[in-house]
Amino acid sequence: MGRTADYSDQRCSVAGALEVIGDPWTLLILRDAFLGIRRFEQWHEKLGVARNVLAARLKSLTAAGVLDKRAYNDRPLRHEYVLTEKGRDLFPIISAMLDWGDKHVYGAGREPHIYHHIDCANRFTPVVACGCCGKPIDPRELSRVSAKSALTVAEVMARVKEDA
Amino acid sequence: MGRTADYSDQRCSVAGALEVIGDPWTLLILRDAFLGIRRFEQWHEKLGVARNVLAARLKSLTAAGVLDKRAYNDRPLRHEYVLTEKGRDLFPIISAMLDWGDKHVYGAGREPHIYHHIDCANRFTPVVACGCCGKPIDPRELSRVSAKSALTVAEVMARVKEDA
Repeated sequence: MGRTADYSDQRCSVAGALEVIGDPWTLLILRDAFLGIRRFEQWHEKLGVARNVLAARLKSLTAAGVLDKRAYNDRPLRHEYVLTEKGRDLFPIISAMLDWGDKHVYGAGREPHIYHHIDCANRFTPVVACGCCGKPIDPRELSRVSAKSALTVAEVMARVKEDA
Repeated sequence: MGRTADYSDQRCSVAGALEVIGDPWTLLILRDAFLGIRRFEQWHEKLGVARNVLAARLKSLTAAGVLDKRAYNDRPLRHEYVLTEKGRDLFPIISAMLDWGDKHVYGAGREPHIYHHIDCANRFTPVVACGCCGKPIDPRELSRVSAKSALTVAEVMARVKEDA
């Protein structure tokens, strides 16, 4: 973001993630990317977002390595935007927002979309599990150790730009 | 949000969630609530956010039922803010952002904080699993059915206000 909030002195991965994807239009663009949207005009039509805003967000997401910009036509030259691995790794964030919005904004029976897990054929509700033992996680079951000298968000974003 | 993005005509739970918690300061306030922060002065010191912005966000989160405002002292009257069940249900969003920021912004070896799952004693990395069969989920393993007549975000937020 940076437009309305400056948390660049935080030493925190949540703030670091927000720096890249913490803008509402950005998250809706990414939501649509998971639904198969790849082209400027499709996003423009689906979101009703101003063209300059959409262009700026796609440019930022491409620069951040979340979307990959590819030519799909030569004459005239046309591009599409595809989720990279870094982008696909955003699925847990989007699915957690979807689940919370279903449960606490729309409420049971009013969900705009219902998802099924093809593998088990049941309705999909995401749970956060431990990547190691597989058990569902309660935040009170976590312990936390802070690094002695972590970079601030501003410092780590500067490194990312140098590496690019 | 509403300040910089108007997606109130979307029929979508992700957009609905963003309407309540899609502001960067809000997400950092909630991150700290999960770490045990409950009082205005603690957030103010930790985040460096302007007092009027912090007060407005705490008021919105209380009105939305995400935080519960409780008196902890009578003379002088002092309040603290505690996560409700609706607020605790935001853990998957915060933990997914944390994990993505660790992996893709800070990178391995530079994480500001390391979490361990007390139960299994291993380092905690969240995975999204199916609440029914428990298997880790790939978004390509989901099918989607849209409701015939879903409410827009604006309509559902109006109902939430009526119910409050």
